[in-house]
Amino acid sequence: MPSSPDHTYPTRQLCEFLARFTLADVPAPVIERAKDLYLDWIASAIAGKDAPAIRRLQEFAAAMGPQDGPAEVLVDRRRTSPYFAALINGASSHVVEQDDVHNGSVLHPAAVVFPAVLAAAQAEGKSGADILLASIAGYEAGIRIGEFMGRSHYTVFHTTGTVGTLAAAAAVAKLYGLDAEGINQALGSAGTQAAGLWEFLRDAADSKQLHTAKAAADGLMSAWIARAGFTGARRILEGAQGMAAGMSTDADPFCLTDGLGTRWATAETSFKFFASCRHTHPAADALKALMQREGIAAAQIERVTTHVHQGAIDVLGPVTNPATIHQAKFSMGTVLGLVAIHGHAGLGEFEEQALQDARVAAFRDKVEMALDDEINRAYPRQWIGRVTVRTTDGRTLEARVDVPKGDPDNTLSRPELEAKAIQLGAFRHGASEAEIREIIRRVWALEQAPDVKDWLPPAR
Amino acid sequence: MPSSPDHTYPTRQLCEFLARFTLADVPAPVIERAKDLYLDWIASAIAGKDAPAIRRLQEFAAAMGPQDGPAEVLVDRRRTSPYFAALINGASSHVVEQDDVHNGSVLHPAAVVFPAVLAAAQAEGKSGADILLASIAGYEAGIRIGEFMGRSHYTVFHTTGTVGTLAAAAAVAKLYGLDAEGINQALGSAGTQAAGLWEFLRDAADSKQLHTAKAAADGLMSAWIARAGFTGARRILEGAQGMAAGMSTDADPFCLTDGLGTRWATAETSFKFFASCRHTHPAADALKALMQREGIAAAQIERVTTHVHQGAIDVLGPVTNPATIHQAKFSMGTVLGLVAIHGHAGLGEFEEQALQDARVAAFRDKVEMALDDEINRAYPRQWIGRVTVRTTDGRTLEARVDVPKGDPDNTLSRPELEAKAIQLGAFRHGASEAEIREIIRRVWALEQAPDVKDWLPPAR
Repeated sequence: MPSSPDHTYPTRQLCEFLARFTLADVPAPVIERAKDLYLDWIASAIAGKDAPAIRRLQEFAAAMGPQDGPAEVLVDRRRTSPYFAALINGASSHVVEQDDVHNGSVLHPAAVVFPAVLAAAQAEGKSGADILLASIAGYEAGIRIGEFMGRSHYTVFHTTGTVGTLAAAAAVAKLYGLDAEGINQALGSAGTQAAGLWEFLRDAADSKQLHTAKAAADGLMSAWIARAGFTGARRILEGAQGMAAGMSTDADPFCLTDGLGTRWATAETSFKFFASCRHTHPAADALKALMQREGIAAAQIERVTTHVHQGAIDVLGPVTNPATIHQAKFSMGTVLGLVAIHGHAGLGEFEEQALQDARVAAFRDKVEMALDDEINRAYPRQWIGRVTVRTTDGRTLEARVDVPKGDPDNTLSRPELEAKAIQLGAFRHGASEAEIREIIRRVWALEQAPDVKDWLPPAR
Repeated sequence: MPSSPDHTYPTRQLCEFLARFTLADVPAPVIERAKDLYLDWIASAIAGKDAPAIRRLQEFAAAMGPQDGPAEVLVDRRRTSPYFAALINGASSHVVEQDDVHNGSVLHPAAVVFPAVLAAAQAEGKSGADILLASIAGYEAGIRIGEFMGRSHYTVFHTTGTVGTLAAAAAVAKLYGLDAEGINQALGSAGTQAAGLWEFLRDAADSKQLHTAKAAADGLMSAWIARAGFTGARRILEGAQGMAAGMSTDADPFCLTDGLGTRWATAETSFKFFASCRHTHPAADALKALMQREGIAAAQIERVTTHVHQGAIDVLGPVTNPATIHQAKFSMGTVLGLVAIHGHAGLGEFEEQALQDARVAAFRDKVEMALDDEINRAYPRQWIGRVTVRTTDGRTLEARVDVPKGDPDNTLSRPELEAKAIQLGAFRHGASEAEIREIIRRVWALEQAPDVKDWLPPAR
């Protein structure tokens, strides 16, 4: 007999909260932060234009999906069904590595939540307030589920692919107005589809884009079929044959309900200042601070030791000699080389210098990672940056940054976010400055928007 | 730098074989067996008609996919794109639990391989010989990958969902004529999408259909995007952050290349004689043999102990009080009750007696499972059935069946397969006897068929 839906297991308690809360329950600064995150996402998704991996998925969608529909594909300004719009927008969100990240869960929520919510909302004629509410539900659920799955999960699995499927499902289920039982069913179908392995890093393969694409699309699917009555496991997270049993050795059920209604995890999400894997940012900040403080140039640096948490070694360790720009974003030495030599590791530096500049390659070989006990214990709640630099004249220098740029306590201002969005739009001519300024205008008033259609003029 | 494609790792050796072999390399009896498997599959897929879970996925496909296309949906005789045809045919293949199973890998290959291959072949205008070659590639790959993932994988993961994604990808990649590198890329994208957890069993939820649906569709997607140039991890199976690292504790790389070109695993696949989970079949066979040998009736049985392997306890153990016909197929006591009282546990018995007959429910409570060391060691290569029966007059009787009906060494004859197919067609009026006889005629000559279109007349 199907277990009767009690309210005593953590996944159910999470679903009860997700079903219940309204925008009136969300503190105003959290809603404002959600708008910041939405702008940062839409610009990131636009910047994925013309990346080969994204083009392949556009071709797949053209072959398998309808030729028109209610949902917008940001990179080509076409319209299709929500499933394929979520797929392509999910893929393109993550390709330039400028989308947000939540530290404690090591989840990139924007790349999976917003593509699913926007596609579903456009198909259902929903409002800006609906999008904000649903997206906050997706962030609150996804972040807690990511924390629940623990550090052991992240050593092999790309949490944004696995947990991202559930984050997207929770968000779209909230958009559809499902009750706790419906959200629970959606999570059941999402959890049993959750996938994504780090193995692709060694081959610089395209899987990272596939992970966000499928998390967004399959999460949307899970909510859609749950609304239609398709059932899934209720204890998909904590059950004896659920996600934690199969894919984690340190899952903590307490995380699933941690501070529901009082702690707003959405607002804990960090923005990326550098265009690289977030694991490189604390060290990059620390090196930048050290070079400024000491007034030294790259040429005076003989060796850099970055003191890091284990997760950085797991993800960045396999990348020793980057072959592609995307892979270079996972090379600690390349990121530090760009910062040391060019002062920044933004989209432009990666595009023009990461592989071309022999000085960057030479600097890369001066950088090593060393596991640091204190930093590792603080992670993932806190991402501390610490570097030790040996100079060519024999000095040993140290610097430490406790809150890297972009973290909630050192966040990007609205002018910084606007400038970043315009830069992302310009990167591949995905959107003109005027178009991005119009998007910015709409986002800052999103809670009043009667609809969420046509962020960019349709292709002719 | 991406690792250069060497030929020394097991996944690559498997891909080299898959790319190389032709139908001329396959022994004639294996080709004949592949045709048996294809007939058994297409009838199983037709029998999934009108199941609520399948209807929900048909609605999803109608909302998200194109309204027409080159690929056939067997349950509603409509046409759509290959992705959605693979999705629905994959789901419907598995719903009546009559599709095939490979013992050693505990994989249901038909439900994931044939839906993907048929959909892709119809879109590409391929022949019957092409379908046979591609399907054999899918079986050979999927079975070896299932064996590679080991018994630990199956304790939490539904191998047909996880490994099935790679089996479907290998099959479609072969159909597309990809070389070893292309097949390797397809497996990389498939493995990083591989998912499916057993947790749904406790809720009698619809996930089993979602698993085969997504394995077939996502496998097809993986081959499609690989052909288009989308890359994946090369060592997706054995790599340090690959499938085995994340989802197995007893993976054996030797299995991936075991007997390539000499051992034809396709022909090791078993047919289902009972319409229930394969884990119930050995005990059902043994009980049936015991009752015939001793000439006793159900009413004379006080207690039945089935001596089983651990996998049976993992999958059947959670089902104590089945609430749905589908869940009853995972109840050892219900299956034995049907066999004891009604002489068979076929589609008709499940539909009309499994939940309705109070004698079956009473018999169910007389049945227990006990882990048996010898049987557990023989599993999964051999599925031995052994039961101990205590009679109401105080006798203790035993029976053992070493090769259950449907196993390769005790397989179904072509007349038995034809009769089963006609019964499956009639089950939900999915296809008339005349339509099934026409399918049978085409399948027995499949290697000569110039095309594989229109297995059933299109809906008007």
